[in-house]
Amino acid sequence: MVEKIKNIAVLTSGGDAPGMNAAIRAVVRACSFYKIECTGVYRGYQGLIEADFEALDARSVRNIINKGGTFLKSTRSEEFKTKEGRKKAFDNLKAAKVDALIVIGGDGTFTGGQLFSQEFKFPIVGIPATIDNDINGTDYTLGYDTALNTVVEAIDKIRDTASSHNRLFLIEVMGRDAGDIALNSGIGAGAEEILIPEENLGAERLIDSLKKSKKSGKTSSIIVVAEGEKSGKNIFELASYIEDNLDEYEIRVSVLGHIQRGGSPSCFDRVLASKLGVGAVEALMNGKSEIMVGIHHQKVVHVDLVTAIKGDAKIDKELRRVADITSV
Amino acid sequence: MVEKIKNIAVLTSGGDAPGMNAAIRAVVRACSFYKIECTGVYRGYQGLIEADFEALDARSVRNIINKGGTFLKSTRSEEFKTKEGRKKAFDNLKAAKVDALIVIGGDGTFTGGQLFSQEFKFPIVGIPATIDNDINGTDYTLGYDTALNTVVEAIDKIRDTASSHNRLFLIEVMGRDAGDIALNSGIGAGAEEILIPEENLGAERLIDSLKKSKKSGKTSSIIVVAEGEKSGKNIFELASYIEDNLDEYEIRVSVLGHIQRGGSPSCFDRVLASKLGVGAVEALMNGKSEIMVGIHHQKVVHVDLVTAIKGDAKIDKELRRVADITSV
Amino acid sequence: MVEKIKNIAVLTSGGDAPGMNAAIRAVVRACSFYKIECTGVYRGYQGLIEADFEALDARSVRNIINKGGTFLKSTRSEEFKTKEGRKKAFDNLKAAKVDALIVIGGDGTFTGGQLFSQEFKFPIVGIPATIDNDINGTDYTLGYDTALNTVVEAIDKIRDTASSHNRLFLIEVMGRDAGDIALNSGIGAGAEEILIPEENLGAERLIDSLKKSKKSGKTSSIIVVAEGEKSGKNIFELASYIEDNLDEYEIRVSVLGHIQRGGSPSCFDRVLASKLGVGAVEALMNGKSEIMVGIHHQKVVHVDLVTAIKGDAKIDKELRRVADITSV
Amino acid sequence: MVEKIKNIAVLTSGGDAPGMNAAIRAVVRACSFYKIECTGVYRGYQGLIEADFEALDARSVRNIINKGGTFLKSTRSEEFKTKEGRKKAFDNLKAAKVDALIVIGGDGTFTGGQLFSQEFKFPIVGIPATIDNDINGTDYTLGYDTALNTVVEAIDKIRDTASSHNRLFLIEVMGRDAGDIALNSGIGAGAEEILIPEENLGAERLIDSLKKSKKSGKTSSIIVVAEGEKSGKNIFELASYIEDNLDEYEIRVSVLGHIQRGGSPSCFDRVLASKLGVGAVEALMNGKSEIMVGIHHQKVVHVDLVTAIKGDAKIDKELRRVADITSV
Repeated sequence: MVEKIKNIAVLTSGGDAPGMNAAIRAVVRACSFYKIECTGVYRGYQGLIEADFEALDARSVRNIINKGGTFLKSTRSEEFKTKEGRKKAFDNLKAAKVDALIVIGGDGTFTGGQLFSQEFKFPIVGIPATIDNDINGTDYTLGYDTALNTVVEAIDKIRDTASSHNRLFLIEVMGRDAGDIALNSGIGAGAEEILIPEENLGAERLIDSLKKSKKSGKTSSIIVVAEGEKSGKNIFELASYIEDNLDEYEIRVSVLGHIQRGGSPSCFDRVLASKLGVGAVEALMNGKSEIMVGIHHQKVVHVDLVTAIKGDAKIDKELRRVADITSV
Repeated sequence: MVEKIKNIAVLTSGGDAPGMNAAIRAVVRACSFYKIECTGVYRGYQGLIEADFEALDARSVRNIINKGGTFLKSTRSEEFKTKEGRKKAFDNLKAAKVDALIVIGGDGTFTGGQLFSQEFKFPIVGIPATIDNDINGTDYTLGYDTALNTVVEAIDKIRDTASSHNRLFLIEVMGRDAGDIALNSGIGAGAEEILIPEENLGAERLIDSLKKSKKSGKTSSIIVVAEGEKSGKNIFELASYIEDNLDEYEIRVSVLGHIQRGGSPSCFDRVLASKLGVGAVEALMNGKSEIMVGIHHQKVVHVDLVTAIKGDAKIDKELRRVADITSV
Repeated sequence: MVEKIKNIAVLTSGGDAPGMNAAIRAVVRACSFYKIECTGVYRGYQGLIEADFEALDARSVRNIINKGGTFLKSTRSEEFKTKEGRKKAFDNLKAAKVDALIVIGGDGTFTGGQLFSQEFKFPIVGIPATIDNDINGTDYTLGYDTALNTVVEAIDKIRDTASSHNRLFLIEVMGRDAGDIALNSGIGAGAEEILIPEENLGAERLIDSLKKSKKSGKTSSIIVVAEGEKSGKNIFELASYIEDNLDEYEIRVSVLGHIQRGGSPSCFDRVLASKLGVGAVEALMNGKSEIMVGIHHQKVVHVDLVTAIKGDAKIDKELRRVADITSV
Repeated sequence: MVEKIKNIAVLTSGGDAPGMNAAIRAVVRACSFYKIECTGVYRGYQGLIEADFEALDARSVRNIINKGGTFLKSTRSEEFKTKEGRKKAFDNLKAAKVDALIVIGGDGTFTGGQLFSQEFKFPIVGIPATIDNDINGTDYTLGYDTALNTVVEAIDKIRDTASSHNRLFLIEVMGRDAGDIALNSGIGAGAEEILIPEENLGAERLIDSLKKSKKSGKTSSIIVVAEGEKSGKNIFELASYIEDNLDEYEIRVSVLGHIQRGGSPSCFDRVLASKLGVGAVEALMNGKSEIMVGIHHQKVVHVDLVTAIKGDAKIDKELRRVADITSV
């Protein structure tokens, strides 16, 4: 028989992502709905170690659903990687009469949570939140949809300039290992070429393709490049290479950078956060632990944390095909 | 054996929706990719009757992926509802050597297309585009995701005012028969109450609920009301009713109206439009007709037009549950 | 000799406007800079009467410069209109050792402040904040620039639909007595006609003008109508009148409403708020009272509150001329 | 006596800026209003040389007021710097029966125009359009207000991340010689420090100031850095220097880059463009030449092109003072 959960702690960890606040709000509101106490933990795992706690009720989370970032803040904790650190965290949770923990974050957050849960038999449920969409077992992670909108809006502005000047722009977007942001935002922004970590088509092919484009009547071009792109050149070297091998365009580089992590979450991310926040509380109530609540085919699903973590990015071949066809 | 399609016409019809331009672009680009001629038809079915055609190539659709509305324009056509009108349309298509037709729109668009296709054995494929998301057999229609973002951004602005003044706002959003926009945007905007056509909870219950909210410490409230809400009162009558039965708040009404149909499409809608536009051309190439290309579990699917049309809205009970819990 | 001010209270009153938070922040930061205590008053004049005070320091106002609304909240106070109410307010300020008061708001806010200042010889400085831009002696009020951007962005979305359907849209914007919002946003949105309170050109003339437009090749039209427009018809009656007298267009009405008061302030409003907030504190330090700090020719100016209040709206004839020419 | 102008050509040149399309529209509409022919010149001065002309009427410029960039496009022309090039341009204008020219752009655009006008006694009026606001004799240039909004919106997103992580962000904004963008957007974004080309406060002072901030309780910081900042270090070197001399923060760099030039113009820029476009046509009608139409104290003014060009950036000391006070 499952013992009744009486107090759930919630924290955010790792890189922040739009929708984290909405997820915290849903956790707190679901606790309130089910008459469970809710304990907010500031600054992620480091806050567990330092007992940086605050009791949260339904009113504590008003007017935050639309805010980017995380009001519980997020830090990296070296100490939590040590056994001593985790022991302190456990003692603090026990002292605060917390029964279970919800961790909102990505890969690293889940790895820490998984370890902690196993060591201390402490119930933990994860909510996937990272703009990179690189978690196994969930169709979407929190923040990903918002980041895509941020990227296409930025490229829309750059396109104004590109098409006014007949220029070629190389635009770097986030994605060290996964090309999801690049591929989707590239299609969404109408990019002529999209370079992603999962395939290395080679810089020579790019030149050929751009020459063909130019012949077909294109007068300006947007190339979307994922951070982790594999040509062996960084984006500035790539720009020089193109400049050396193609007379047709003025080349410009833009690295979108940190704006991609912020901003008010899209409706999609807010609704997803609400579903997952409620789902996480209900999973704990049903005795689950060491799982992530994800979304698959529009339904909340439970995925073992170990499965969630070992995401190996695979290119969405159908999307690549659509990209190639629509950039004709 | 399927005869090779050589010329595909494309039109938009019915209410406009963000993503229509992106869908037209994808159709045109896919035709170009597959060496098929593409004929743009202006002003929907009326343009078929008046042979308001223009040949489109890959360059014709540059820089439109991010534009709201439809550059092919859209009108209602009474004439297309007559046999004579449709005969003229058919003759014009034949004269222009068009082999097949892609129609982008909603319910009414598909009904007209289905009839035309049957009468003249003319290959037709539909692409679902309507902000109401009320088409059977597709998880999403074009424009729906963008409309949700437009609605939550508008409500975010109103919330600034609501929370500055301790006011209660009734906000009317689109949705004559379906509560999808209201339910999703209501969750996304953190609404306290959501009134939808699929259920009539009664105005009395609303008063009770608002009294309870007030007691729980809420000082301002947002109520999202779908156009087709079934309390028997319009939104202004509902506001008066609340005012008469609840002293606590100043009440204000806001009807969001036509801003919901416009705006630059979200990345989601642009990618969806790209997939469906390519999918529609490929369906015709494979000899399909009288179908809609929709999206289901992130894959392009084919749905009989007759099935697509008879959408009967069902409330998403899980979403309603999440709404109730997170508005505690 | 001016006695040193040691504690300044700040409140927001009347309708909220984007930039109010930025102004509060600047007041608090300027107090901190000059080593003056700062007392935040919640809920405007009613908060004065109820001593709803909170000491504010430089850190209290972090991360609010970009937020719409006012975190100090705003209410109407009937009690402050009575001598007794104002006496209570004065006693509370004295008890809290407050020396001077900064009031952020419009017309009504200044009227109350002026009366209070005279009655109790209490130093008061006003900061003009209202989206209507209807205060004498300042080129701009806080919130006005943001509201203009909100209006043109909303009309941009509606234009997508208007031009897709060859429709005529009547769009109501704020402005009961002053046409500034209508005139500026009308020019900014490329409206064909702009109806403002300061002139009554008559509904007949409108019909003539629209007929001429249609002949000149316009296929869709946007008419911006200020709330206080003087044709004697409300916007829905006006729509019917046009429909009865003009066959050419489908007519639609959109009332923008409360979204105009909210939203993150524009850079212009944030900078203006910063200048005026600093200026208000410095004015009090220099012994000024019963004045408003306004902006004229990009410099902070001092205007007697009585002068500021009796704003009589005058139409900007040059802007009207530009509107007429660019809507050809 | 002034001979009647019968045909005015219009071109955009140099870096594009939001509001250029709105200015072209106003020129075309004013020509139409005054029954003057209008000739659009594509690709700036190069288009003059290649006679890349198109007759524009009032309908040619519909639905462009809200678009970023310039539909007439803009290129650099080496050929126009030669006497032969300019002679070709003149011959082409004569052949097309053009009487006068309006050039929309910045510094370089005006220099070319001034020379051409003197050589061939050809009437030229300039409209200042550059996001840098570095033209003498006008309070604002087209695109500047929009760029400020773009910058503060980008920094708002980054602030979400900064405050979630207790980070220090160095953000590079445009401004090689002038600190206007940095100073205004820095105040608007609530930056802790603003580094501009007009003053070199030294990297040591920055460290001192950041240490003080940290002590005063700041947990995250935004530093806005103009491109042309004079510390002698580029932004990445500056980041390393801070990292070496300050333990307190994680440091991140973001270069906003080209997004600053694009985007839909703000209402302010659209209205300004409308005034200046009309003003330019009317100036030519009144026999003016070799002038720029600018805005001063909200009125259109005429400034000799030679005066306009030799803008020497001066820091707005009052604004610097406000920045220092509000960043306490």
